[in-house]
Amino acid sequence: MIKTGIVGGTGYTGVELLRLLAMHPQAELQAITSRAEAGTPVADIFPNLRGHVDIAFSDPNDASLTDCDVVFFATPNGIAMQHAPALLEAGVKVIDLAADFRFKDAALWEQWYGMTHACPELLAEAVYGLPEINREAVRDARLIGNAGCYPTAVELGFMPLIENSLIDLERLVADCKSGASGAGRSATVGLLMSEINESVKAYGVQGHRHLPEIRQVLTSLAAQPVGLTFVPHLMPMTRGIHATLYATLKNTDVDLQALFEQRYRNEAFVDILPAGSHPETRTVRGGNNCRIAVHRPQDGDTVVVLSVIDNLVKGAAGQAVQNMNIMFGEDEKAGLDGVALLP
Amino acid sequence: MIKTGIVGGTGYTGVELLRLLAMHPQAELQAITSRAEAGTPVADIFPNLRGHVDIAFSDPNDASLTDCDVVFFATPNGIAMQHAPALLEAGVKVIDLAADFRFKDAALWEQWYGMTHACPELLAEAVYGLPEINREAVRDARLIGNAGCYPTAVELGFMPLIENSLIDLERLVADCKSGASGAGRSATVGLLMSEINESVKAYGVQGHRHLPEIRQVLTSLAAQPVGLTFVPHLMPMTRGIHATLYATLKNTDVDLQALFEQRYRNEAFVDILPAGSHPETRTVRGGNNCRIAVHRPQDGDTVVVLSVIDNLVKGAAGQAVQNMNIMFGEDEKAGLDGVALLP
Amino acid sequence: MIKTGIVGGTGYTGVELLRLLAMHPQAELQAITSRAEAGTPVADIFPNLRGHVDIAFSDPNDASLTDCDVVFFATPNGIAMQHAPALLEAGVKVIDLAADFRFKDAALWEQWYGMTHACPELLAEAVYGLPEINREAVRDARLIGNAGCYPTAVELGFMPLIENSLIDLERLVADCKSGASGAGRSATVGLLMSEINESVKAYGVQGHRHLPEIRQVLTSLAAQPVGLTFVPHLMPMTRGIHATLYATLKNTDVDLQALFEQRYRNEAFVDILPAGSHPETRTVRGGNNCRIAVHRPQDGDTVVVLSVIDNLVKGAAGQAVQNMNIMFGEDEKAGLDGVALLP
Amino acid sequence: MIKTGIVGGTGYTGVELLRLLAMHPQAELQAITSRAEAGTPVADIFPNLRGHVDIAFSDPNDASLTDCDVVFFATPNGIAMQHAPALLEAGVKVIDLAADFRFKDAALWEQWYGMTHACPELLAEAVYGLPEINREAVRDARLIGNAGCYPTAVELGFMPLIENSLIDLERLVADCKSGASGAGRSATVGLLMSEINESVKAYGVQGHRHLPEIRQVLTSLAAQPVGLTFVPHLMPMTRGIHATLYATLKNTDVDLQALFEQRYRNEAFVDILPAGSHPETRTVRGGNNCRIAVHRPQDGDTVVVLSVIDNLVKGAAGQAVQNMNIMFGEDEKAGLDGVALLP
Repeated sequence: MIKTGIVGGTGYTGVELLRLLAMHPQAELQAITSRAEAGTPVADIFPNLRGHVDIAFSDPNDASLTDCDVVFFATPNGIAMQHAPALLEAGVKVIDLAADFRFKDAALWEQWYGMTHACPELLAEAVYGLPEINREAVRDARLIGNAGCYPTAVELGFMPLIENSLIDLERLVADCKSGASGAGRSATVGLLMSEINESVKAYGVQGHRHLPEIRQVLTSLAAQPVGLTFVPHLMPMTRGIHATLYATLKNTDVDLQALFEQRYRNEAFVDILPAGSHPETRTVRGGNNCRIAVHRPQDGDTVVVLSVIDNLVKGAAGQAVQNMNIMFGEDEKAGLDGVALLP
Repeated sequence: MIKTGIVGGTGYTGVELLRLLAMHPQAELQAITSRAEAGTPVADIFPNLRGHVDIAFSDPNDASLTDCDVVFFATPNGIAMQHAPALLEAGVKVIDLAADFRFKDAALWEQWYGMTHACPELLAEAVYGLPEINREAVRDARLIGNAGCYPTAVELGFMPLIENSLIDLERLVADCKSGASGAGRSATVGLLMSEINESVKAYGVQGHRHLPEIRQVLTSLAAQPVGLTFVPHLMPMTRGIHATLYATLKNTDVDLQALFEQRYRNEAFVDILPAGSHPETRTVRGGNNCRIAVHRPQDGDTVVVLSVIDNLVKGAAGQAVQNMNIMFGEDEKAGLDGVALLP
Repeated sequence: MIKTGIVGGTGYTGVELLRLLAMHPQAELQAITSRAEAGTPVADIFPNLRGHVDIAFSDPNDASLTDCDVVFFATPNGIAMQHAPALLEAGVKVIDLAADFRFKDAALWEQWYGMTHACPELLAEAVYGLPEINREAVRDARLIGNAGCYPTAVELGFMPLIENSLIDLERLVADCKSGASGAGRSATVGLLMSEINESVKAYGVQGHRHLPEIRQVLTSLAAQPVGLTFVPHLMPMTRGIHATLYATLKNTDVDLQALFEQRYRNEAFVDILPAGSHPETRTVRGGNNCRIAVHRPQDGDTVVVLSVIDNLVKGAAGQAVQNMNIMFGEDEKAGLDGVALLP
Repeated sequence: MIKTGIVGGTGYTGVELLRLLAMHPQAELQAITSRAEAGTPVADIFPNLRGHVDIAFSDPNDASLTDCDVVFFATPNGIAMQHAPALLEAGVKVIDLAADFRFKDAALWEQWYGMTHACPELLAEAVYGLPEINREAVRDARLIGNAGCYPTAVELGFMPLIENSLIDLERLVADCKSGASGAGRSATVGLLMSEINESVKAYGVQGHRHLPEIRQVLTSLAAQPVGLTFVPHLMPMTRGIHATLYATLKNTDVDLQALFEQRYRNEAFVDILPAGSHPETRTVRGGNNCRIAVHRPQDGDTVVVLSVIDNLVKGAAGQAVQNMNIMFGEDEKAGLDGVALLP
């Protein structure tokens, strides 16, 4: 059994991680910390866990996280970097669900996240936790910067096109739609039911933190600079991301459907839908899947990729468990074979 | 492995049954029938099942349901009664998720369902499929009339009070709230997003078909007639039932909290919340649980019971699987230990 | 033109009051105060008002509210009572949308609201602002305690039955469902989209502040004590209240439909639906109407009244404008003749 | 008073037209037809109209539409073209809310709508009903093809850029999000609450009927061919369209904010938000406004325009009334000055 710990489990990625670990046949939850909720049984805050998770939150200072095999950070940006060095030194593997270890360039991270990085020396070693790109590196990693939610949907959608040099890299567009859980469980007027329900809006058009993350990954795939316009939108729903990707094909003779199917034929969690399909976010609700459809409208030279994930699963907690499975030599699908909940 | 078949799997209870059976360690799906969709892969209609359910719908005439150990009817009322006798004769057990076998009194059924019953002689044998009431009978049954969704939430909430003769039986009130999936997947204007969203309404106040079903069960528990007012309401959501039950206590000296906890302490799927709690339907979304809180407002003589289920799971497909588990001597929780999806 | 002022207009009742006053032919907005938002144009916070409301929030200390004919308090409980005496002395009429002036009994108010009342001597004079009960008193009032949202729906539904002594007053039940906007626009985890969406729950079963308010009014109508169980529920929607009322008839010979129609035949804002109807909250969204249907299920002795309002209009801002119209001798419907928005 | 008639008023554009006409100071509803609902009072189907609209649906054969000054067709595509010639001949003006008269090229229309056009000879005369483009032509028109919902949001967003030759016309992208009411009030499984709620999907990526409509208008504005990729998405809400538009600037020295403000400074219904804004669809719910923000992310050469409307108002019924006001010399804002409903 893998002994797991969670730092900061009172948010939505935390409860989702708890749900997945509770159903995982090879994982065992040793400790979960929360300064604010120390002493409170986890299931008091998230009653869906009653009967499945029996432990209480413990104070970060009291928790013996060093006894764990792996510690997940389901904390805001800037927390994991303060604690990762000591845990790594104690031989504990670390998976950060926030952004502290997603960037190779500390200066870039500091510019977008507005903080000084506490351990920039670890960035070279840290592995970007998107298994479909980095499986081998994940296998050997001590430290994972779990891929972001929007980035997962966008990168998996663009990857086959970039790897095969099929598109003009100067002008990519990623128009993304997310449910409200992606913004977290913080007491903010902008996240109230009465503010979000029955409305759609874009946000962060001038620059969202997932832009440099996606750009870094696509640039690395392309081995050249990539020009990307990324516009996230807030949807009146709780879970789900729908990325709609636009690019100009350099060559329209390629069978895009076959290309995508081929690229992902061995990937358990990436599902290429039949030609002409339109994936719905509800088909991945609660599941660790990314479902993708590829279109070339009116047989022109614009390719449109539709890519959906559950932001809390393949976009966060599920991906973290997938990374853990790989790191510990388990079946990559262990604990992740639940069928998405529809309707 | 239990060989299972499903008749009529294109509705919401059908897809939920498929989801649960796909994750069940001891069940195997042999056939699923649909006249309208014969030949279509199940996962084309419900893409959440891609990678989990590989079979296609077959024509009811071609399906060899008699090879199954058990056949579930996820059909409209009036279908199972036409096919159950032949299946039973062939040694196949039958679980009807509709109402054909829920009533002991054929005339009462005919009055509320507007049809002549095709096999009233089976009603005496048929077992009302609510394990928390009828576990022993379910164990030996060939034919189950799976309890309805509203009835499950209401009956589990009233049961401890009635069994202990604590309430005035003349004037029970069950004010129930359901998500839209309870009304099924039929092309009806009244079920459109634009009709239901951002609105609440009662319906069937003059008489809903679940009224006689609940009355039959409560009367049986009480061994005397029960006067019940049942008002269902349609909520702007997909899944979930919240039953709010009102009764007058004959005796206010009883510790209701202890009574409910005691009654359900051995029930895996009934969870009595701590005193003062208010269960949320989302805490059972996708799970087979019924969560209950019991209140006596202002220490008066009115008892208020709050009871929540997922109408498609404990109110339909999950309960059917629970019944199957009991009938075949499996662990009652097999395939039903998934954690509810929150948020 | 009536010169109006608003204290505290950054909440949902505030923006609704602004919307209604902006369309009112005889009202003019002089000032709106908010300490937190002083200097910010109102339309910056509520962009739906762009082009309709041009003024900015002013600091409460700077606002010359004494120049107004009437000042509305769209503030939390406990604010209006601190400022009303000075305004009244200056000849300004006051309409409080919170609860400070709804109770006749200061001790009862203090018990439920947990504060010492700042001006209990005004409670005798203050008029409970529900025109259908108190129209004449409203006409002559200087100070209005605008009726609460749940109380409006419940009181209008029970009133004809109580006025005609038709029901057993010992055991009334009001099972109420509200959208999230009724809980206000405060940064609270419990009000987040991801907490409320796709879920239903009861709250405050042990005692909600609207219970004593409703009890006071029903007791006054009945001229004797009334036993009421009131259970509010939070719905996954923004606007709307649906009250489902249960009572035992002392006499089943009365034509309830005719009684309700007769009682409200001269009321512009109370609409009795045809027999057998089920009102939907969306039919009053944005309108100042209360729509009511009355049922006697299975011709028994239980009466069920279904009563719907928009909690922000007839349950708050619309009712406040209706009261203002009466106080200033305007057409009671002035500014309130908008058709509800459906779908 | 303008005497108005409506053909086919049982859909969502129909009820919205009724709502707006009921509040219009210069319009009077003479007749509304529906074969299916002949004899039924309009307010029985749409109870929000109770007390505002007293007439019943009449049979199309019996309705004396020729007595009207103007007849609106709120019918499916292909109906207005059958009746418009006779009405025009009788001196009645016609506003079709469907697509029969939006195209200049009958063959193009026939290709996308799959029908033979019944009166192609009227297409030259018919005026495309988007006043911000065609105000003078609308003033003199007998026959209006009211602009579509997506087209209105997209065309108003691109117009200033195209009129000023600022963008590369070869590769425009319009990523659009709509609420479910845009798909109409027809009994279809795909439009059920349980299918749409809590999910997002694209549809019609291979070719949606609004693509040629938008292309026709943009091509006309540009006086040269325009390459457009248009991807509509279905949102889990009822009302609202959010168009996110992407184009490459040929010149980044232009002050886009000033340009947009200048272009629309005399337009009552187009509101350019301050620089850096993100319009929300709820700020136009029930209002006839289009709110637009223009962005140039990271000061690059991609322009992003965010444009929101209420699909049933500025995208359908409100625009039809606006056109009527212009055609009859009324104040363009008559009956359209309602403030959008927020929250």
